[in-house]
Amino acid sequence: MRLSPVLAAALAGALAAPNALAAQAAAGDPIRVRYQAVADRIIAEATRDSSAWQRLARMVDTFGHRLSGSTSLEQAIDWVLAEMRRDGLENVRGEPVMVPRWVRGSESAELVSPRPQRLPMLGLGGSVGTPRGGITAEVLVVSSFAELQARAAEARGKIVLFDVPFTGYGQTVQYRAGGPSAAARAGAVACLIRSVAAYSIRSPHTGALRYDSTVQQIPAAALAAEDAMMLRRMQERGDRVVVRLTMEARTLPDAPSRNVVAEIVGSERPGEVVVVGGHIDSWDVGQGAMDDGGGVVAAWEALRVIQRLGLRPRRTVRVAGWTNEENGLRGGNAYRDAHAAELDSHVLAIETDGGVFRPLGYGFTGSDSAMAIVRQVGSLLQSIGADSIARGGGGADIGPLMQRGVPGMGLIVDGARYFWFHHSDGDTVDKLDPREMAQCVATLAVMAYVVADLPGPLPRAAVATR
Amino acid sequence: MRLSPVLAAALAGALAAPNALAAQAAAGDPIRVRYQAVADRIIAEATRDSSAWQRLARMVDTFGHRLSGSTSLEQAIDWVLAEMRRDGLENVRGEPVMVPRWVRGSESAELVSPRPQRLPMLGLGGSVGTPRGGITAEVLVVSSFAELQARAAEARGKIVLFDVPFTGYGQTVQYRAGGPSAAARAGAVACLIRSVAAYSIRSPHTGALRYDSTVQQIPAAALAAEDAMMLRRMQERGDRVVVRLTMEARTLPDAPSRNVVAEIVGSERPGEVVVVGGHIDSWDVGQGAMDDGGGVVAAWEALRVIQRLGLRPRRTVRVAGWTNEENGLRGGNAYRDAHAAELDSHVLAIETDGGVFRPLGYGFTGSDSAMAIVRQVGSLLQSIGADSIARGGGGADIGPLMQRGVPGMGLIVDGARYFWFHHSDGDTVDKLDPREMAQCVATLAVMAYVVADLPGPLPRAAVATR
Repeated sequence: MRLSPVLAAALAGALAAPNALAAQAAAGDPIRVRYQAVADRIIAEATRDSSAWQRLARMVDTFGHRLSGSTSLEQAIDWVLAEMRRDGLENVRGEPVMVPRWVRGSESAELVSPRPQRLPMLGLGGSVGTPRGGITAEVLVVSSFAELQARAAEARGKIVLFDVPFTGYGQTVQYRAGGPSAAARAGAVACLIRSVAAYSIRSPHTGALRYDSTVQQIPAAALAAEDAMMLRRMQERGDRVVVRLTMEARTLPDAPSRNVVAEIVGSERPGEVVVVGGHIDSWDVGQGAMDDGGGVVAAWEALRVIQRLGLRPRRTVRVAGWTNEENGLRGGNAYRDAHAAELDSHVLAIETDGGVFRPLGYGFTGSDSAMAIVRQVGSLLQSIGADSIARGGGGADIGPLMQRGVPGMGLIVDGARYFWFHHSDGDTVDKLDPREMAQCVATLAVMAYVVADLPGPLPRAAVATR
Repeated sequence: MRLSPVLAAALAGALAAPNALAAQAAAGDPIRVRYQAVADRIIAEATRDSSAWQRLARMVDTFGHRLSGSTSLEQAIDWVLAEMRRDGLENVRGEPVMVPRWVRGSESAELVSPRPQRLPMLGLGGSVGTPRGGITAEVLVVSSFAELQARAAEARGKIVLFDVPFTGYGQTVQYRAGGPSAAARAGAVACLIRSVAAYSIRSPHTGALRYDSTVQQIPAAALAAEDAMMLRRMQERGDRVVVRLTMEARTLPDAPSRNVVAEIVGSERPGEVVVVGGHIDSWDVGQGAMDDGGGVVAAWEALRVIQRLGLRPRRTVRVAGWTNEENGLRGGNAYRDAHAAELDSHVLAIETDGGVFRPLGYGFTGSDSAMAIVRQVGSLLQSIGADSIARGGGGADIGPLMQRGVPGMGLIVDGARYFWFHHSDGDTVDKLDPREMAQCVATLAVMAYVVADLPGPLPRAAVATR
């Protein structure tokens, strides 16, 4: 067998790592030799049909979107648990989590001047509501926090609209998160943002805001990009722009929810765990198929593939469907707390929360010697092009585990269209391709199975390899 | 000067045509030699700034969409006429047309079973309404007319949903036009279609239906592609799918409207006309910017460019903003009737109704010898890549003229995204690019000016050139 450059480099890294696996690799037993055959079986089984996509479609068609605190989320969780038991997975359980309960209620935005027109909108998650009759006020359109600061004197008593073009989620989402409190600080009575989205067919996109505790909470909503641009043009023409915003949004007392957990118990070290999952909750629009029903079902199906092939790795492989990722991260935190005693035994945490599009590989956060090993495991996925392992990566739900030292890994996919549909009514199962989703299942199953089956755990201590 | 292959071929065509221009061309005075300099001036002037796009934005932001019979259409027409007069165009006038008046009213669709959910929808233009309480019925999803025929026995008393994927407008639009009557013929009580659109963010797209006079008129509406697919999946799983459709749609008595007309009167043969235009009406969604506010404004701006350069061609160049293209074609027919006496003097009719995206050239319907000439004129647009002249082309509004023998021409653009936004709330001015729109203005201005200025008219009699 010829060593690929990737494998050779990984092997070199493993050589420098003072642990059993490295020694084994040095002895001429690299991961690829040992696991390529089983990886190929896993890939073949996972990509044999569209069952993962069909299961996701059934879930989201039946229960729809799944906001924390909603009946649909808890019904979906009940269904997933029952299905997992029927699948014959082990230790299937819902682990209790109290979650925030934000309720949108009825809401609308209307352009009052220069001419009446309904403006499609979505209140931002966590927003307070307006008084019953709504808030009618002149609009000040700004393009940045800097412009708001420069024109702060004009903002008092107005509705501030941040018309910020999408340049990338990380940059642009700052206006959704921090825009409302920035507007409040300038004396605004409400805040609108241009939807944080890469494309639009007059489509509003929601998502969480983050109120600053030092200023008043004002209502906030997202407009479609088209209307944000129109209001800006009107302002530039000297029109007096007036909008009426009406929102019943409110936060109710916390509600009970659950993290979904199921396992294939390890044959030799059942107390050591590779956890793989996504989040079962979603925003209250669309079907929450892409974000992140697909991630939960793909992780679940990854265990099913391992199970169907009659494989049982040395360590336990656990699927987790975390609750409340979108507006609280209570699921990820509760998982950390409920499993505090076994965090040292968590060999690896894998999250998929970028849509189960065509998989490219993983981003990994951990020691250099662990990186060398997961690169070898990644190379098992060359046949489906999912073998790229980049430095850095993880996920919101596994963040609390990673903070406690658990190596973390996030599935990387071709996300070209992710932000077209993200947090909108267009996040529906048809946006995912059955074949690509099956490849994600394969990618998750191979990584989870092999890391769970390696003779030694991934080394946690960082060891410099060069 | 070296003759290009296109020009040489065109010249050969012109040689065979027994008219003055051909003789002139044969005498070594080809169009490119005579007109390239002025064409370049026109192109430079048209693409100097974004004034065309700005004018379109002002129109659609101020008046919004413009359905036949609506106040917004007539206000937009008033504004255009006033602006044209202010521009100093000649013979500015609104030519009276009685148009159908279809009113959408309040409307909704809800999934009742297997679970309650609002379904975004748009009633189809021309549809009748439902009884006040709506129509609640089981849904039969079919994929084609053939499948409906095969399952006709199941359709009685149901709502038939045509879930037909978009393969191309010409093919798929048949279900919007003919689906309702096909469903009625099978005994259905209402008809739904999957929106005729190439992309969707849960976006319904409207458009006209065509009732067959031999069967009952039943209410009809478009669902977003996502929901059509979901209902099909539900049916395939054996779920009983029930929808409640509520529509106030109705047709009121015809209302007065106008074709917008303005001119640059010809210097030598003012009675001979090149007419260039688009349609001023739109569906009652979005801004009707792409379809077809942009076409009207681009044609209007083409005259403005000619005017600003102080050019006055031999013949009259006329801009027309036809009314009621979308649901009646009354504007195009009324223009034909009002100008019946001068149809023989219409040298060329040009329409732009595919969005003013990057121009590629024209499709032309006329005699071979005329084709040879317009290919020469087209070659003047090489510098902006708009020099392709294809056989066949025209437009709905100039169809009545073409039937009477007027040579017809349709602007061809890069329409890759046209059917993403077509007839939807996402047809807004931001979908058009100022630079591309300016290139369309240039393309229209060069063709209209040069054909209007040629020594002889385009030959109408078909003359075979090979």
